Amino acid sequence: MTWQGVPVVVTGGMGFIGSNLVRRLAGLGARVTVIDRMLAQYGANPFNLAELVPPVQLIEADIGAEAVVAPALGEAAFVFNLAGQTSHMDSMQQPLEDLRLNQEANLRFLETLRRTNPAARVIFSSTRQFYGPPQYLPVDEKHPIAPPDINGIHKYAAEAYHMLFARVYGQRITALRLTNVFGPRMRIRDAKQTFLGIWIRHAIQDTRFEVWGGEQKRDFTYVEDMVDAFLAAALSETTIGRVYNIGGCPPVSLLELAELLVRIAGSGAYDRREFPAERKKIDIGDYVADDSAFRAVTGWRPRHSLDEGLAETLAFYRAHAAHYL
Amino acid sequence: MTWQGVPVVVTGGMGFIGSNLVRRLAGLGARVTVIDRMLAQYGANPFNLAELVPPVQLIEADIGAEAVVAPALGEAAFVFNLAGQTSHMDSMQQPLEDLRLNQEANLRFLETLRRTNPAARVIFSSTRQFYGPPQYLPVDEKHPIAPPDINGIHKYAAEAYHMLFARVYGQRITALRLTNVFGPRMRIRDAKQTFLGIWIRHAIQDTRFEVWGGEQKRDFTYVEDMVDAFLAAALSETTIGRVYNIGGCPPVSLLELAELLVRIAGSGAYDRREFPAERKKIDIGDYVADDSAFRAVTGWRPRHSLDEGLAETLAFYRAHAAHYL
Repeated sequence: MTWQGVPVVVTGGMGFIGSNLVRRLAGLGARVTVIDRMLAQYGANPFNLAELVPPVQLIEADIGAEAVVAPALGEAAFVFNLAGQTSHMDSMQQPLEDLRLNQEANLRFLETLRRTNPAARVIFSSTRQFYGPPQYLPVDEKHPIAPPDINGIHKYAAEAYHMLFARVYGQRITALRLTNVFGPRMRIRDAKQTFLGIWIRHAIQDTRFEVWGGEQKRDFTYVEDMVDAFLAAALSETTIGRVYNIGGCPPVSLLELAELLVRIAGSGAYDRREFPAERKKIDIGDYVADDSAFRAVTGWRPRHSLDEGLAETLAFYRAHAAHYL
Repeated sequence: MTWQGVPVVVTGGMGFIGSNLVRRLAGLGARVTVIDRMLAQYGANPFNLAELVPPVQLIEADIGAEAVVAPALGEAAFVFNLAGQTSHMDSMQQPLEDLRLNQEANLRFLETLRRTNPAARVIFSSTRQFYGPPQYLPVDEKHPIAPPDINGIHKYAAEAYHMLFARVYGQRITALRLTNVFGPRMRIRDAKQTFLGIWIRHAIQDTRFEVWGGEQKRDFTYVEDMVDAFLAAALSETTIGRVYNIGGCPPVSLLELAELLVRIAGSGAYDRREFPAERKKIDIGDYVADDSAFRAVTGWRPRHSLDEGLAETLAFYRAHAAHYL
């Protein structure tokens, strides 16, 4: 199929993953509308789409603001729903705000879609976060749900809404459970989006960063590969009504990652530190995704090694540091 | 231990299970405060506690109304949190209202407790409902979570809040996952609380009721046994931070139950009917609880057979029909 002229909505499209998806879709000729609350602390950054708005249309709104978002949702052939806040600590400190942003807004959004455009193809950006500490590795989609924090509870509920609407109302929805996605356009000012953001900041500024613990194994998805996965999901009818893990590069420990980053950057350094007590309670330890179901159904696989992804990411921030610091 | 003079809060204490718990606690000498929104459609019925208010104190409020409920929560040694709405159909038609009542109110409630009385012993009334259609029988607590409706999503999130607060903040919380509880003081005007309510109404009015499907197996807990379980949980330190299924009488099919009810009542009759299509989508089929973990830890077991429970229930509604129709 061609994306040329196809009306597409990307929620959270001014954020990290969303903006990379928008850029790809716009490049493929899609007619893209972004719905975004433009909250800088959750990753929205006007520079992410700077030269693209217009032609990309921007609706500055909460996805739950029915009257504002209904017209765009009503005419979309595809809706990529990536809006949300990702900070675990913020969710513990402001749980009601997190409920609003990550769960209630999704319920309103789905009700709007059901009313205005029940046939739209919808891909929801979910998370591996609510598996909690893995009971086995690699983690497949049957792994028990055990949200380790408020954010995890709300993201799980939001995913459950999507699957419920698919099952009960026949909406054409797929959910992808993301792991650690990284790449250009992520927030690097602090660790609100991912710890890797702040590491990259230190690497390009040639300063020291902290590695908490370090033994934990994680798998990382380069954002271009994640964009591939969103598009592959959207184009596969088989994935409708289902949930899939998305993994990526082979897992590495955080120490290995820090070492790799410093080596590729040729700058920065790290100090190892004990895991802070209040974070340890909500940390999940090792995580490795089993994404074989998604690979089997769509043929997707990551095209970038961790080294390549890190090199491209560092090059991006070296060129555009001013817009992200 | 003695309940004499012990300050206890029961949320949803004007409803079906709550009021039975309140009556038992008051009889044991506890100083009981009820927090209840007094919503008749969700089971609140002033007659349930008629002669007991006072000495039982009634606070007519949402459990999330922090300023109103904080004083009572602040001085409680035990808090039984039973407030909520139980109608699956209402939750699908008014999902945002269900979010408010069944989830957000619980988050506000837990935040209030954490601030005013972090050492209170808390028992949360959860549900087997979010297991969805059982993948195996009997269903133990490790069974996957698969909420079949909006109500199930919100009840699961509310339980997850309780477990999170126990783990992260050290609050002394236990959650019990209830199955089909029945007995005096349940709503029998309609099927909003349980289908068994409307069956009992027809039995005492000697009219005909409908059995949808009929092959589905369910287990039923007589409300006095459920009250036993709440008290047993409260008095067991071992149950803190954990979730337990509560079952009851050996499972019967709905047809067997209808037959038994009509026979014990000596009145009423039933017609078998196909399951309505829109209900079938959210029905869960057979359900049988494995509650062996709770029995092992607390020694609890049901004291009433299904026959005894039905006979007592029918006698209650024959005596007090006017207050429930």
